[in-house]
Amino acid sequence: MAEPSKFTPELNTAELTDFVKEVFPQAKSLQWSIRKISNGSITVVMNIDEKHLRPGGTISGPTMFALADVSAYLVILAHIGKVALAVTTSLNINFLAKPPLANLVAECRLIKLGKRLAVCEVHINSVENNQLVAQATATYSIPPRN
Amino acid sequence: MAEPSKFTPELNTAELTDFVKEVFPQAKSLQWSIRKISNGSITVVMNIDEKHLRPGGTISGPTMFALADVSAYLVILAHIGKVALAVTTSLNINFLAKPPLANLVAECRLIKLGKRLAVCEVHINSVENNQLVAQATATYSIPPRN
Amino acid sequence: MAEPSKFTPELNTAELTDFVKEVFPQAKSLQWSIRKISNGSITVVMNIDEKHLRPGGTISGPTMFALADVSAYLVILAHIGKVALAVTTSLNINFLAKPPLANLVAECRLIKLGKRLAVCEVHINSVENNQLVAQATATYSIPPRN
Amino acid sequence: MAEPSKFTPELNTAELTDFVKEVFPQAKSLQWSIRKISNGSITVVMNIDEKHLRPGGTISGPTMFALADVSAYLVILAHIGKVALAVTTSLNINFLAKPPLANLVAECRLIKLGKRLAVCEVHINSVENNQLVAQATATYSIPPRN
Repeated sequence: MAEPSKFTPELNTAELTDFVKEVFPQAKSLQWSIRKISNGSITVVMNIDEKHLRPGGTISGPTMFALADVSAYLVILAHIGKVALAVTTSLNINFLAKPPLANLVAECRLIKLGKRLAVCEVHINSVENNQLVAQATATYSIPPRN
Repeated sequence: MAEPSKFTPELNTAELTDFVKEVFPQAKSLQWSIRKISNGSITVVMNIDEKHLRPGGTISGPTMFALADVSAYLVILAHIGKVALAVTTSLNINFLAKPPLANLVAECRLIKLGKRLAVCEVHINSVENNQLVAQATATYSIPPRN
Repeated sequence: MAEPSKFTPELNTAELTDFVKEVFPQAKSLQWSIRKISNGSITVVMNIDEKHLRPGGTISGPTMFALADVSAYLVILAHIGKVALAVTTSLNINFLAKPPLANLVAECRLIKLGKRLAVCEVHINSVENNQLVAQATATYSIPPRN
Repeated sequence: MAEPSKFTPELNTAELTDFVKEVFPQAKSLQWSIRKISNGSITVVMNIDEKHLRPGGTISGPTMFALADVSAYLVILAHIGKVALAVTTSLNINFLAKPPLANLVAECRLIKLGKRLAVCEVHINSVENNQLVAQATATYSIPPRN
Protein backbone atom coordinates (compact mmCIF):
# COMPACT_ATOMS: atom_id res chain seq x y z
CA MET A 1 0.00 0.00 0.00
CA ALA A 2 2.93 2.32 -0.47
CA GLU A 3 2.66 2.80 -4.22
CA PRO A 4 3.84 6.28 -5.33
CA SER A 5 1.01 8.76 -5.63
CA LYS A 6 -0.12 10.03 -8.99
CA PHE A 7 -1.53 13.18 -7.42
CA THR A 8 0.28 16.54 -7.30
CA PRO A 9 -0.67 19.36 -4.90
CA GLU A 10 -1.76 22.73 -6.29
CA LEU A 11 -1.58 24.64 -2.99
CA ASN A 12 1.11 24.80 -0.32
CA THR A 13 0.51 24.83 3.43
CA ALA A 14 0.26 28.62 3.78
CA GLU A 15 -2.04 29.05 0.78
CA LEU A 16 -4.32 26.25 1.91
CA THR A 17 -4.48 27.42 5.54
CA ASP A 18 -5.29 30.99 4.50
CA PHE A 19 -7.96 29.91 2.05
CA VAL A 20 -9.75 27.64 4.52
CA LYS A 21 -9.65 30.29 7.27
CA GLU A 22 -11.25 32.71 4.82
CA VAL A 23 -14.04 30.52 3.43
CA PHE A 24 -14.71 28.46 6.51
CA PRO A 25 -14.07 30.59 9.62
CA GLN A 26 -15.76 28.08 11.98
CA ALA A 27 -13.06 25.52 11.17
CA LYS A 28 -10.75 27.46 13.49
CA SER A 29 -12.53 26.06 16.51
CA LEU A 30 -11.24 22.61 15.56
CA GLN A 31 -7.71 23.81 16.43
CA TRP A 32 -6.07 22.04 13.51
CA SER A 33 -2.86 22.87 11.72
CA ILE A 34 -1.29 21.39 8.62
CA ARG A 35 2.04 19.72 9.28
CA LYS A 36 2.83 18.61 5.75
CA ILE A 37 1.40 18.38 2.24
CA SER A 38 2.80 15.66 -0.05
CA ASN A 39 1.80 14.15 -3.37
CA GLY A 40 -1.68 12.82 -2.72
CA SER A 41 -1.56 13.18 1.05
CA ILE A 42 -1.62 15.56 3.98
CA THR A 43 -0.69 15.43 7.67
CA VAL A 44 -2.94 17.42 10.02
CA VAL A 45 -2.43 17.92 13.77
CA MET A 46 -5.32 18.59 16.13
CA ASN A 47 -4.75 20.20 19.51
CA ILE A 48 -6.71 18.36 22.15
CA ASP A 49 -7.87 19.84 25.43
CA GLU A 50 -10.45 19.26 28.16
CA LYS A 51 -13.43 20.07 25.95
CA HIS A 52 -12.72 16.95 23.84
CA LEU A 53 -12.77 14.70 26.89
CA ARG A 54 -15.13 11.75 27.27
CA PRO A 55 -15.77 9.45 30.23
CA GLY A 56 -12.72 7.31 30.95
CA GLY A 57 -10.22 10.07 30.11
CA THR A 58 -10.47 9.50 26.39
CA ILE A 59 -11.28 11.69 23.36
CA SER A 60 -14.82 11.82 22.00
CA GLY A 61 -15.84 10.14 18.77
CA PRO A 62 -17.20 13.37 17.26
CA THR A 63 -13.77 14.96 17.79
CA MET A 64 -12.08 12.21 15.78
CA PHE A 65 -14.84 12.39 13.16
CA ALA A 66 -14.26 16.15 12.84
CA LEU A 67 -10.52 15.62 12.39
CA ALA A 68 -11.05 12.94 9.72
CA ASP A 69 -13.55 15.16 7.92
CA VAL A 70 -11.43 18.33 7.93
CA SER A 71 -8.34 16.35 6.85
CA ALA A 72 -10.21 14.96 3.87
CA TYR A 73 -11.43 18.47 2.98
CA LEU A 74 -7.87 19.80 3.25
CA VAL A 75 -6.24 17.08 1.15
CA ILE A 76 -8.84 17.55 -1.58
CA LEU A 77 -8.47 21.36 -1.67
CA ALA A 78 -4.70 20.97 -1.65
CA HIS A 79 -5.01 19.02 -4.90
CA ILE A 80 -7.86 20.81 -6.70
CA GLY A 81 -7.13 24.39 -5.63
CA LYS A 82 -9.35 27.09 -4.19
CA VAL A 83 -12.80 25.50 -4.52
CA ALA A 84 -14.82 26.13 -1.39
CA LEU A 85 -17.81 24.00 -2.16
CA ALA A 86 -16.57 20.45 -1.81
CA VAL A 87 -18.98 18.69 0.56
CA THR A 88 -18.81 15.39 2.42
CA THR A 89 -21.22 12.85 0.98
CA SER A 90 -20.28 9.97 3.28
CA LEU A 91 -17.80 9.06 5.97
CA ASN A 92 -17.12 5.65 7.46
CA ILE A 93 -15.07 5.66 10.66
CA ASN A 94 -13.69 2.79 12.74
CA PHE A 95 -12.63 3.45 16.33
CA LEU A 96 -9.70 1.12 17.01
CA ALA A 97 -8.34 2.11 20.41
CA LYS A 98 -9.18 4.60 23.14
CA PRO A 99 -6.86 7.58 22.68
CA PRO A 100 -5.30 9.18 25.74
CA LEU A 101 -5.94 12.91 26.21
CA ALA A 102 -3.13 14.04 23.89
CA ASN A 103 -2.91 15.66 20.47
CA LEU A 104 -3.99 13.68 17.43
CA VAL A 105 -2.26 13.41 14.07
CA ALA A 106 -4.22 12.54 10.94
CA GLU A 107 -2.51 11.10 7.89
CA CYS A 108 -4.94 11.54 5.02
CA ARG A 109 -4.40 10.12 1.58
CA LEU A 110 -6.33 10.60 -1.66
CA ILE A 111 -7.28 7.27 -3.21
CA LYS A 112 -9.50 8.73 -5.92
CA LEU A 113 -9.75 12.21 -7.38
CA GLY A 114 -12.41 12.09 -10.06
CA LYS A 115 -14.34 14.83 -11.77
CA ARG A 116 -17.29 14.47 -9.40
CA LEU A 117 -16.10 12.43 -6.41
CA ALA A 118 -12.96 12.28 -4.32
CA VAL A 119 -12.25 9.46 -1.86
CA CYS A 120 -9.68 9.62 0.98
CA GLU A 121 -8.33 7.25 3.59
CA VAL A 122 -7.51 8.71 6.99
CA HIS A 123 -5.41 7.21 9.79
CA ILE A 124 -5.55 8.99 13.15
CA ASN A 125 -2.72 8.41 15.61
CA SER A 126 -2.18 9.65 19.14
CA VAL A 127 1.05 11.62 19.59
CA GLU A 128 1.43 10.17 23.08
CA ASN A 129 1.93 6.53 22.16
CA ASN A 130 1.94 6.71 18.34
CA GLN A 131 -0.95 4.26 18.36
CA LEU A 132 -3.47 4.08 15.53
CA VAL A 133 -6.72 5.10 17.25
CA ALA A 134 -9.12 5.53 14.32
CA GLN A 135 -9.38 4.88 10.61
CA ALA A 136 -11.81 6.56 8.25
CA THR A 137 -12.80 6.62 4.60
CA ALA A 138 -14.41 9.84 3.39
CA THR A 139 -16.15 10.63 0.11
CA TYR A 140 -16.54 14.20 -1.04
CA SER A 141 -18.61 15.54 -3.88
CA ILE A 142 -16.67 18.15 -5.82
CA PRO A 143 -18.28 20.86 -7.91
CA PRO A 144 -17.61 21.08 -11.66
CA ARG A 145 -14.16 22.57 -12.36
CA ASN A 146 -12.98 24.40 -15.47
CA MET B 1 -39.01 -2.32 6.63
CA ALA B 2 -41.76 -1.79 9.17
CA GLU B 3 -41.69 -5.23 10.75
CA PRO B 4 -42.61 -5.11 14.47
CA SER B 5 -39.61 -4.86 16.75
CA LYS B 6 -38.59 -7.78 18.92
CA PHE B 7 -36.80 -5.46 21.35
CA THR B 8 -38.30 -4.18 24.62
CA PRO B 9 -36.96 -1.13 26.51
CA GLU B 10 -35.67 -1.54 30.06
CA LEU B 11 -35.48 2.18 30.88
CA ASN B 12 -37.97 4.99 30.41
CA THR B 13 -37.13 8.52 29.25
CA ALA B 14 -36.52 9.96 32.71
CA GLU B 15 -34.38 7.02 33.90
CA LEU B 16 -32.29 7.07 30.73
CA THR B 17 -31.82 10.85 30.74
CA ASP B 18 -30.77 10.88 34.39
CA PHE B 19 -28.35 7.98 33.93
CA VAL B 20 -26.63 9.49 30.90
CA LYS B 21 -26.32 12.91 32.59
CA GLU B 22 -24.67 11.17 35.54
CA VAL B 23 -22.16 8.94 33.72
CA PHE B 24 -21.49 11.19 30.78
CA PRO B 25 -21.75 14.84 31.89
CA GLN B 26 -20.14 16.18 28.68
CA ALA B 27 -23.08 14.89 26.66
CA LYS B 28 -25.08 17.85 27.93
CA SER B 29 -23.23 20.16 25.56
CA LEU B 30 -24.87 18.34 22.65
CA GLN B 31 -28.21 19.82 23.74
CA TRP B 32 -30.19 16.67 23.06
CA SER B 33 -33.42 15.51 24.61
CA ILE B 34 -35.31 12.25 24.27
CA ARG B 35 -38.72 12.67 22.71
CA LYS B 36 -39.83 9.05 22.78
CA ILE B 37 -38.65 5.52 23.53
CA SER B 38 -40.44 2.67 21.75
CA ASN B 39 -39.78 -1.03 21.25
CA GLY B 40 -36.38 -1.12 19.54
CA SER B 41 -36.23 2.59 18.75
CA ILE B 42 -35.79 6.08 20.12
CA THR B 43 -36.48 9.62 18.94
CA VAL B 44 -33.92 12.25 19.95
CA VAL B 45 -34.15 16.00 19.31
CA MET B 46 -31.07 18.19 19.04
CA ASN B 47 -31.28 21.93 19.59
CA ILE B 48 -29.33 23.72 16.91
CA ASP B 49 -27.83 27.18 17.25
CA GLU B 50 -25.14 29.37 15.71
CA LYS B 51 -22.25 27.25 16.94
CA HIS B 52 -23.36 24.38 14.67
CA LEU B 53 -23.31 26.60 11.61
CA ARG B 54 -21.20 25.86 8.55
CA PRO B 55 -20.61 27.96 5.41
CA GLY B 56 -23.78 28.24 3.35
CA GLY B 57 -26.06 28.51 6.38
CA THR B 58 -26.09 24.78 6.97
CA ILE B 59 -25.30 22.49 9.91
CA SER B 60 -21.85 20.93 10.22
CA GLY B 61 -21.17 17.26 9.54
CA PRO B 62 -19.64 16.68 12.99
CA THR B 63 -22.88 17.96 14.56
CA MET B 64 -24.92 15.37 12.67
CA PHE B 65 -22.34 12.69 13.44
CA ALA B 66 -22.61 13.55 17.16
CA LEU B 67 -26.39 13.31 17.03
CA ALA B 68 -26.26 9.92 15.27
CA ASP B 69 -23.70 8.65 17.76
CA VAL B 70 -25.54 9.80 20.89
CA SER B 71 -28.85 8.47 19.56
CA ALA B 72 -27.29 5.04 19.04
CA TYR B 73 -25.84 5.14 22.56
CA LEU B 74 -29.24 6.10 23.96
CA VAL B 75 -31.24 3.44 22.13
CA ILE B 76 -28.79 0.75 23.25
CA LEU B 77 -28.81 1.84 26.90
CA ALA B 78 -32.61 2.08 26.78
CA HIS B 79 -32.67 -1.62 25.91
CA ILE B 80 -29.80 -3.04 27.96
CA GLY B 81 -30.15 -0.89 31.07
CA LYS B 82 -27.61 1.09 33.09
CA VAL B 83 -24.35 0.00 31.45
CA ALA B 84 -22.08 2.99 30.96
CA LEU B 85 -19.34 1.35 28.97
CA ALA B 86 -20.86 0.71 25.57
CA VAL B 87 -18.46 2.23 23.01
CA THR B 88 -18.81 3.02 19.32
CA THR B 89 -16.74 0.68 17.17
CA SER B 90 -17.78 2.09 13.81
CA LEU B 91 -20.15 4.60 12.30
CA ASN B 92 -21.03 5.06 8.65
CA ILE B 93 -22.86 8.29 7.79
CA ASN B 94 -24.35 9.53 4.53
CA PHE B 95 -25.12 13.21 4.13
CA LEU B 96 -28.19 13.43 1.92
CA ALA B 97 -29.24 17.08 1.91
CA LYS B 98 -28.02 20.35 3.40
CA PRO B 99 -30.09 20.98 6.51
CA PRO B 100 -31.31 24.51 7.19
CA LEU B 101 -30.31 26.03 10.56
CA ALA B 102 -33.15 24.39 12.52
CA ASN B 103 -33.45 21.65 15.12
CA LEU B 104 -32.73 18.08 14.07
CA VAL B 105 -34.70 14.96 14.96
CA ALA B 106 -33.02 11.56 14.96
CA GLU B 107 -35.04 8.37 14.63
CA CYS B 108 -32.76 5.58 15.76
CA ARG B 109 -33.64 1.92 15.50
CA LEU B 110 -31.89 -1.18 16.83
CA ILE B 111 -31.34 -3.72 14.07
CA LYS B 112 -29.18 -6.09 16.12
CA LEU B 113 -28.71 -6.45 19.87
CA GLY B 114 -26.25 -9.26 20.40
CA LYS B 115 -24.20 -10.24 23.40
CA ARG B 116 -21.15 -8.35 22.14
CA LEU B 117 -22.33 -6.01 19.39
CA ALA B 118 -25.33 -3.79 18.80
CA VAL B 119 -26.13 -2.23 15.42
CA CYS B 120 -28.48 0.73 14.86
CA GLU B 121 -29.86 2.64 11.92
CA VAL B 122 -30.33 6.38 12.31
CA HIS B 123 -32.37 8.77 10.17
CA ILE B 124 -31.87 12.48 10.82
CA ASN B 125 -34.58 14.88 9.72
CA SER B 126 -34.79 18.66 9.86
CA VAL B 127 -37.79 19.95 11.80
CA GLU B 128 -38.07 22.87 9.39
CA ASN B 129 -38.98 20.96 6.25
CA ASN B 130 -39.20 17.39 7.59
CA GLN B 131 -36.54 16.43 5.05
CA LEU B 132 -34.22 13.44 5.58
CA VAL B 133 -30.79 15.10 5.79
CA ALA B 134 -28.53 12.25 6.94
CA GLN B 135 -28.59 8.49 7.44
CA ALA B 136 -26.17 6.55 9.60
CA THR B 137 -25.41 3.01 10.71
CA ALA B 138 -23.61 2.68 14.03
CA THR B 139 -22.02 -0.36 15.67
CA TYR B 140 -21.39 -0.42 19.40
CA SER B 141 -19.40 -2.90 21.42
CA ILE B 142 -21.23 -3.79 24.61
CA PRO B 143 -19.54 -5.13 27.72
CA PRO B 144 -20.45 -8.58 29.08
CA ARG B 145 -23.78 -8.54 30.91
CA ASN B 146 -25.04 -10.85 33.63
CA MET C 1 -38.84 5.88 9.70
CA ALA C 2 -42.06 5.24 7.86
CA GLU C 3 -42.55 8.68 6.34
CA PRO C 4 -44.31 8.54 2.96
CA SER C 5 -41.94 8.41 0.02
CA LYS C 6 -41.59 11.35 -2.30
CA PHE C 7 -40.35 9.10 -5.12
CA THR C 8 -42.53 7.74 -7.93
CA PRO C 9 -41.56 4.75 -10.08
CA GLU C 10 -41.16 5.18 -13.86
CA LEU C 11 -41.01 1.46 -14.71
CA ASN C 12 -43.20 -1.44 -13.67
CA THR C 13 -41.94 -4.92 -12.76
CA ALA C 14 -42.13 -6.36 -16.29
CA GLU C 15 -40.46 -3.35 -17.92
CA LEU C 16 -37.67 -3.27 -15.36
CA THR C 17 -37.04 -7.04 -15.50
CA ASP C 18 -36.90 -7.03 -19.31
CA PHE C 19 -34.59 -4.03 -19.43
CA VAL C 20 -32.11 -5.46 -16.92
CA LYS C 21 -32.06 -8.86 -18.65
CA GLU C 22 -31.25 -7.07 -21.89
CA VAL C 23 -28.48 -4.72 -20.71
CA PHE C 24 -27.03 -6.95 -18.03
CA PRO C 25 -27.38 -10.61 -19.06
CA GLN C 26 -25.02 -11.87 -16.35
CA ALA C 27 -27.44 -10.68 -13.68
CA LYS C 28 -29.56 -13.74 -14.45
CA SER C 29 -27.09 -15.95 -12.62
CA LEU C 30 -28.06 -14.20 -9.39
CA GLN C 31 -31.51 -15.82 -9.64
CA TRP C 32 -33.38 -12.76 -8.49
CA SER C 33 -36.93 -11.73 -9.21
CA ILE C 34 -38.82 -8.57 -8.39
CA ARG C 35 -41.76 -9.13 -6.05
CA LYS C 36 -43.00 -5.56 -5.84
CA ILE C 37 -42.19 -1.98 -6.84
CA SER C 38 -43.60 0.82 -4.66
CA ASN C 39 -43.01 4.54 -4.30
CA GLY C 40 -39.31 4.77 -3.47
CA SER C 41 -38.82 1.09 -2.77
CA ILE C 42 -38.57 -2.40 -4.22
CA THR C 43 -38.81 -5.97 -2.91
CA VAL C 44 -36.45 -8.48 -4.53
CA VAL C 45 -36.35 -12.23 -3.88
CA MET C 46 -33.20 -14.30 -4.37
CA ASN C 47 -33.37 -18.04 -4.86
CA ILE C 48 -30.75 -19.72 -2.75
CA ASP C 49 -29.25 -23.12 -3.45
CA GLU C 50 -26.17 -25.18 -2.60
CA LYS C 51 -23.76 -22.93 -4.48
CA HIS C 52 -24.42 -20.10 -2.00
CA LEU C 53 -23.54 -22.33 0.96
CA ARG C 54 -20.79 -21.49 3.43
CA PRO C 55 -19.36 -23.54 6.32
CA GLY C 56 -21.93 -23.95 9.08
CA GLY C 57 -24.87 -24.32 6.68
CA THR C 58 -25.21 -20.59 6.13
CA ILE C 59 -25.24 -18.27 3.10
CA SER C 60 -22.04 -16.58 1.97
CA GLY C 61 -21.39 -12.88 2.49
CA PRO C 62 -20.75 -12.24 -1.23
CA THR C 63 -24.21 -13.67 -1.98
CA MET C 64 -25.84 -11.17 0.38
CA PHE C 65 -23.65 -8.38 -1.01
CA ALA C 66 -24.75 -9.28 -4.55
CA LEU C 67 -28.41 -9.19 -3.52
CA ALA C 68 -28.00 -5.80 -1.82
CA ASP C 69 -26.17 -4.43 -4.85
CA VAL C 70 -28.66 -5.67 -7.46
CA SER C 71 -31.61 -4.46 -5.35
CA ALA C 72 -30.12 -0.98 -5.21
CA TYR C 73 -29.54 -1.03 -8.97
CA LEU C 74 -33.14 -2.15 -9.52
CA VAL C 75 -34.75 0.44 -7.26
CA ILE C 76 -32.76 3.21 -8.91
CA LEU C 77 -33.62 2.12 -12.45
CA ALA C 78 -37.26 1.71 -11.42
CA HIS C 79 -37.26 5.41 -10.54
CA ILE C 80 -35.04 6.96 -13.22
CA GLY C 81 -36.02 4.77 -16.17
CA LYS C 82 -33.95 2.90 -18.74
CA VAL C 83 -30.45 4.12 -17.93
CA ALA C 84 -27.99 1.24 -18.02
CA LEU C 85 -24.95 3.00 -16.74
CA ALA C 86 -25.64 3.57 -13.05
CA VAL C 87 -22.62 2.17 -11.17
CA THR C 88 -22.04 1.37 -7.51
CA THR C 89 -19.61 3.81 -5.93
CA SER C 90 -19.75 2.39 -2.40
CA LEU C 91 -21.59 -0.21 -0.37
CA ASN C 92 -21.54 -0.68 3.38
CA ILE C 93 -22.97 -3.98 4.61
CA ASN C 94 -23.59 -5.26 8.15
CA PHE C 95 -24.08 -8.98 8.70
CA LEU C 96 -26.51 -9.30 11.60
CA ALA C 97 -27.37 -13.00 11.85
CA LYS C 98 -26.40 -16.22 10.08
CA PRO C 99 -29.13 -16.96 7.56
CA PRO C 100 -30.33 -20.55 7.17
CA LEU C 101 -30.09 -22.03 3.66
CA ALA C 102 -33.39 -20.54 2.45
CA ASN C 103 -34.43 -17.83 0.02
CA LEU C 104 -33.64 -14.22 0.85
CA VAL C 105 -35.89 -11.19 0.48
CA ALA C 106 -34.40 -7.71 0.09
CA GLU C 107 -36.43 -4.63 0.93
CA CYS C 108 -34.60 -1.72 -0.71
CA ARG C 109 -35.57 1.89 -0.21
CA LEU C 110 -34.31 5.05 -1.92
CA ILE C 111 -33.22 7.63 0.64
CA LYS C 112 -31.73 10.06 -1.87
CA LEU C 113 -32.18 10.43 -5.62
CA GLY C 114 -30.04 13.33 -6.69
CA LYS C 115 -28.80 14.40 -10.10
CA ARG C 116 -25.48 12.63 -9.62
CA LEU C 117 -25.86 10.26 -6.68
CA ALA C 118 -28.53 7.91 -5.39
CA VAL C 119 -28.42 6.34 -1.93
CA CYS C 120 -30.45 3.28 -0.85
CA GLU C 121 -30.99 1.34 2.34
CA VAL C 122 -31.39 -2.41 2.04
CA HIS C 123 -32.76 -4.88 4.61
CA ILE C 124 -32.25 -8.57 3.82
CA ASN C 125 -34.52 -11.08 5.56
CA SER C 126 -34.59 -14.86 5.44
CA VAL C 127 -37.91 -16.30 4.27
CA GLU C 128 -37.50 -19.21 6.67
CA ASN C 129 -37.68 -17.33 9.95
CA ASN C 130 -38.37 -13.78 8.72
CA GLN C 131 -35.22 -12.68 10.54
CA LEU C 132 -33.23 -9.60 9.49
CA VAL C 133 -29.89 -11.12 8.43
CA ALA C 134 -28.12 -8.17 6.79
CA GLN C 135 -28.44 -4.43 6.34
CA ALA C 136 -26.70 -2.39 3.67
CA THR C 137 -26.38 1.17 2.43
CA ALA C 138 -25.44 1.55 -1.23
CA THR C 139 -24.43 4.64 -3.17
CA TYR C 140 -24.72 4.71 -6.94
CA SER C 141 -23.37 7.26 -9.37
CA ILE C 142 -25.94 8.06 -12.01
CA PRO C 143 -25.11 9.46 -15.41
CA PRO C 144 -26.45 12.86 -16.52
CA ARG C 145 -30.13 12.67 -17.48
CA ASN C 146 -32.11 14.94 -19.78
CA MET D 1 0.72 5.37 6.84
CA ALA D 2 3.74 3.11 6.55
CA GLU D 3 4.43 2.67 10.24
CA PRO D 4 5.98 -0.74 11.01
CA SER D 5 3.44 -3.37 11.94
CA LYS D 6 3.18 -4.68 15.48
CA PHE D 7 1.56 -7.90 14.26
CA THR D 8 3.43 -11.17 13.68
CA PRO D 9 2.06 -14.04 11.57
CA GLU D 10 1.48 -17.44 13.16
CA LEU D 11 0.95 -19.37 9.90
CA ASN D 12 2.93 -19.43 6.67
CA THR D 13 1.43 -19.50 3.17
CA ALA D 14 1.27 -23.29 2.87
CA GLU D 15 -0.22 -23.80 6.33
CA LEU D 16 -2.82 -21.11 5.80
CA THR D 17 -3.80 -22.31 2.31
CA ASP D 18 -4.17 -25.91 3.49
CA PHE D 19 -6.21 -24.91 6.52
CA VAL D 20 -8.64 -22.74 4.56
CA LYS D 21 -9.10 -25.40 1.85
CA GLU D 22 -9.97 -27.88 4.59
CA VAL D 23 -12.42 -25.81 6.64
CA PHE D 24 -13.89 -23.80 3.83
CA PRO D 25 -13.93 -25.89 0.63
CA GLN D 26 -16.25 -23.50 -1.23
CA ALA D 27 -13.55 -20.82 -1.08
CA LYS D 28 -11.76 -22.64 -3.90
CA SER D 29 -14.29 -21.35 -6.40
CA LEU D 30 -12.95 -17.84 -5.78
CA GLN D 31 -9.68 -18.88 -7.45
CA TRP D 32 -7.48 -17.03 -5.01
CA SER D 33 -3.90 -17.72 -4.05
CA ILE D 34 -1.69 -16.17 -1.41
CA ARG D 35 1.30 -14.37 -2.84
CA LYS D 36 2.88 -13.20 0.40
CA ILE D 37 2.32 -13.01 4.15
CA SER D 38 4.11 -10.23 6.05
CA ASN D 39 3.87 -8.73 9.51
CA GLY D 40 0.29 -7.56 9.74
CA SER D 41 -0.50 -7.94 6.04
CA ILE D 42 -1.14 -10.34 3.18
CA THR D 43 -1.14 -10.20 -0.61
CA VAL D 44 -3.81 -12.26 -2.35
CA VAL D 45 -4.19 -12.77 -6.12
CA MET D 46 -7.53 -13.56 -7.73
CA ASN D 47 -7.71 -15.16 -11.15
CA ILE D 48 -10.33 -13.43 -13.23
CA ASP D 49 -12.16 -14.99 -16.15
CA GLU D 50 -15.34 -14.51 -18.18
CA LYS D 51 -17.68 -15.44 -15.32
CA HIS D 52 -16.63 -12.29 -13.43
CA LEU D 53 -17.49 -10.07 -16.38
CA ARG D 54 -19.99 -7.24 -16.14
CA PRO D 55 -21.41 -4.97 -18.88
CA GLY D 56 -18.71 -2.69 -20.28
CA GLY D 57 -15.97 -5.34 -20.10
CA THR D 58 -15.36 -4.76 -16.40
CA ILE D 59 -15.32 -6.96 -13.30
CA SER D 60 -18.43 -7.26 -11.13
CA GLY D 61 -18.74 -5.60 -7.73
CA PRO D 62 -19.54 -8.89 -5.95
CA THR D 63 -16.27 -10.33 -7.30
CA MET D 64 -14.28 -7.48 -5.74
CA PHE D 65 -16.30 -7.76 -2.53
CA ALA D 66 -15.52 -11.50 -2.37
CA LEU D 67 -11.80 -10.81 -2.84
CA ALA D 68 -11.79 -8.15 -0.12
CA ASP D 69 -13.69 -10.46 2.23
CA VAL D 70 -11.50 -13.53 1.70
CA SER D 71 -8.33 -11.42 2.01
CA ALA D 72 -9.49 -10.11 5.37
CA TYR D 73 -10.31 -13.66 6.51
CA LEU D 74 -6.86 -14.82 5.38
CA VAL D 75 -4.89 -12.04 7.04
CA ILE D 76 -6.74 -12.60 10.31
CA LEU D 77 -6.21 -16.38 10.30
CA ALA D 78 -2.56 -15.85 9.37
CA HIS D 79 -2.18 -13.89 12.62
CA ILE D 80 -4.44 -15.77 15.04
CA GLY D 81 -3.83 -19.32 13.79
CA LYS D 82 -6.21 -22.13 12.93
CA VAL D 83 -9.54 -20.68 14.08
CA ALA D 84 -12.23 -21.43 11.53
CA LEU D 85 -15.04 -19.41 12.99
CA ALA D 86 -14.06 -15.81 12.39
CA VAL D 87 -17.05 -14.16 10.68
CA THR D 88 -17.47 -10.88 8.84
CA THR D 89 -19.56 -8.42 10.83
CA SER D 90 -19.32 -5.52 8.38
CA LEU D 91 -17.60 -4.53 5.18
CA ASN D 92 -17.45 -1.11 3.59
CA ILE D 93 -16.23 -1.04 -0.03
CA ASN D 94 -15.50 1.87 -2.37
CA PHE D 95 -15.31 1.24 -6.09
CA LEU D 96 -12.73 3.68 -7.44
CA ALA D 97 -12.17 2.73 -11.09
CA LYS D 98 -13.53 0.18 -13.55
CA PRO D 99 -11.05 -2.68 -13.66
CA PRO D 100 -10.19 -4.22 -17.03
CA LEU D 101 -10.78 -8.00 -17.35
CA ALA D 102 -7.45 -8.99 -15.78
CA ASN D 103 -6.34 -10.58 -12.51
CA LEU D 104 -6.76 -8.62 -9.29
CA VAL D 105 -4.27 -8.27 -6.44
CA ALA D 106 -5.47 -7.46 -2.92
CA GLU D 107 -3.15 -5.93 -0.37
CA CYS D 108 -4.80 -6.45 2.99
CA ARG D 109 -3.51 -5.00 6.22
CA LEU D 110 -4.58 -5.55 9.82
CA ILE D 111 -5.28 -2.26 11.57
CA LYS D 112 -6.72 -3.78 14.75
CA LEU D 113 -6.46 -7.26 16.19
CA GLY D 114 -8.41 -7.25 19.44
CA LYS D 115 -9.77 -10.04 21.55
CA ARG D 116 -13.20 -9.83 19.96
CA LEU D 117 -12.83 -7.76 16.78
CA ALA D 118 -10.30 -7.49 13.99
CA VAL D 119 -10.32 -4.65 11.44
CA CYS D 120 -8.51 -4.71 8.07
CA GLU D 121 -7.92 -2.31 5.22
CA VAL D 122 -7.89 -3.75 1.71
CA HIS D 123 -6.58 -2.19 -1.49
CA ILE D 124 -7.45 -3.99 -4.74
CA ASN D 125 -5.31 -3.30 -7.80
CA SER D 126 -5.58 -4.54 -11.36
CA VAL D 127 -2.47 -6.38 -12.57
CA GLU D 128 -2.98 -4.93 -16.05
CA ASN D 129 -2.42 -1.29 -15.26
CA ASN D 130 -1.51 -1.44 -11.57
CA GLN D 131 -4.43 0.90 -10.87
CA LEU D 132 -6.21 0.99 -7.51
CA VAL D 133 -9.73 -0.16 -8.41
CA ALA D 134 -11.33 -0.68 -5.00
CA GLN D 135 -10.73 -0.03 -1.33
CA ALA D 136 -12.44 -1.79 1.54
CA THR D 137 -12.53 -1.87 5.32
CA ALA D 138 -13.66 -5.15 6.86
CA THR D 139 -14.52 -5.99 10.46
CA TYR D 140 -14.47 -9.58 11.66
CA SER D 141 -15.75 -11.00 14.92
CA ILE D 142 -13.30 -13.50 16.31
CA PRO D 143 -14.22 -16.25 18.74
CA PRO D 144 -12.67 -16.39 22.22
CA ARG D 145 -9.08 -17.72 22.10
CA ASN D 146 -7.08 -19.47 24.80
